[in-house]
Amino acid sequence: MKKELTVIKVGGKVIENEEALSRMLDGFCRIQGPRVLVCGGGVMASALAAQMGIESRMVDGRRITDAETLKVVTMVYAGLVNKNVVAKLNARGVNAIGLSGADLDCIRCDKRPVGKVDYGFVGDVKAVNAGAFSLLIDGGAVPVVCAITHDGNGQLLNTNADTVASSVASALAEIYDVTLTFCFDKPGVLMDASDDSSVVPVMRRTDFERMKAEGIVSDGMIPKLENAYKAIDAGVKRIVITNAAGLGTDSGTVIL
Amino acid sequence: MKKELTVIKVGGKVIENEEALSRMLDGFCRIQGPRVLVCGGGVMASALAAQMGIESRMVDGRRITDAETLKVVTMVYAGLVNKNVVAKLNARGVNAIGLSGADLDCIRCDKRPVGKVDYGFVGDVKAVNAGAFSLLIDGGAVPVVCAITHDGNGQLLNTNADTVASSVASALAEIYDVTLTFCFDKPGVLMDASDDSSVVPVMRRTDFERMKAEGIVSDGMIPKLENAYKAIDAGVKRIVITNAAGLGTDSGTVIL
Repeated sequence: MKKELTVIKVGGKVIENEEALSRMLDGFCRIQGPRVLVCGGGVMASALAAQMGIESRMVDGRRITDAETLKVVTMVYAGLVNKNVVAKLNARGVNAIGLSGADLDCIRCDKRPVGKVDYGFVGDVKAVNAGAFSLLIDGGAVPVVCAITHDGNGQLLNTNADTVASSVASALAEIYDVTLTFCFDKPGVLMDASDDSSVVPVMRRTDFERMKAEGIVSDGMIPKLENAYKAIDAGVKRIVITNAAGLGTDSGTVIL
Repeated sequence: MKKELTVIKVGGKVIENEEALSRMLDGFCRIQGPRVLVCGGGVMASALAAQMGIESRMVDGRRITDAETLKVVTMVYAGLVNKNVVAKLNARGVNAIGLSGADLDCIRCDKRPVGKVDYGFVGDVKAVNAGAFSLLIDGGAVPVVCAITHDGNGQLLNTNADTVASSVASALAEIYDVTLTFCFDKPGVLMDASDDSSVVPVMRRTDFERMKAEGIVSDGMIPKLENAYKAIDAGVKRIVITNAAGLGTDSGTVIL
């Protein structure tokens, strides 16, 4: 029987202020067994870019990453966010280690080809080094992964954090029984976006298709769920969508 | 017999532009056997601070680190510099992993007490987790360490990179035969600061005291050499002062 492993992805909104971050980290500590944390941080990157006089340009919710913007996201994701989270986890007794995709070559990407849109220094995941992750995990460390990857030729790349989380979860599904948890600012997939108590407890693929057609799930939730089903196809056992309060509990939406 | 280990400290001037960085990394690759790289980056931190409208304040060459400045140095040292160096080393076939002192609790510091000067979020090294380093090193990884540490209670701290390097070297001297190499923009300790060919090949402690009294070594070189002798006292076998071209060769100044 494989060991259990939980991969938790948290978004920028969950970590942008001290209180929200603290709530998330407390939730993370409630989760038992081996864990990997993947952190976004787009909100903070936009704030720093603005402070530096760099314009944030987004297409379909994805950041156009020119050379200056790559510096900004590298500084925010791999530096400010990652090291603060690692220090705060260590203070909670978690043996955390921060990783970008370049560290131990753990996530290698291809620079996205220029199509209708030139996304710049954006990477699509090519290979996850499951051996490097399992070495750290089996040695008792808790990887804290940021969404900065590399191309293997010395070029850093900006990668979508949801994609990083599902790619890592999928690759580690070869070795572990993986639960992938998306932690964001809502308690789960909601039947009514304005009512936090309307959480859908279980969502099968047919439910998703129907709810998408009916407009119940929309916007940012659609790529999140499509990502989730791709991870299920790749062998991830269970996907949970919840918020910081739901981490380590049975609440939220379970994707089957 | 202990295994050999080389700890190389490089300063900001050696990594601030692509060409100088490339030369340093080529030199780093010439060094045989287990290695640890410690990177500074003060020049780049000052540049980012200026771009963000934050004033850099230095006292005796040390940065006053208020909360905003701590963000800047965390972003530059642990993010921008560290991940670029790691990606470029991986591209050269080196299994690099970036570390701050918070990762795996590998360098724990005390916040410097407020004396005549309040340095702010500056840390003095309290403990180096030699076990964490040797686990990575013996697993074939090459730690790339930045000068951001933590206090064990979730607070990041800015620490002098020379001190980080000599503390790591001293702690690892328990396990390895350690050579500590300071790589900066001069080929060694010079008899005549304006003549790069006047390198002092070997410097004993008595030579240092005499050259200090005669004003041959001065300014930034004095704390560097004092640090070096402290590391020798702590068990480091050999200290070398050189530049990028001298890495992995027999040139430079050997401190005995």
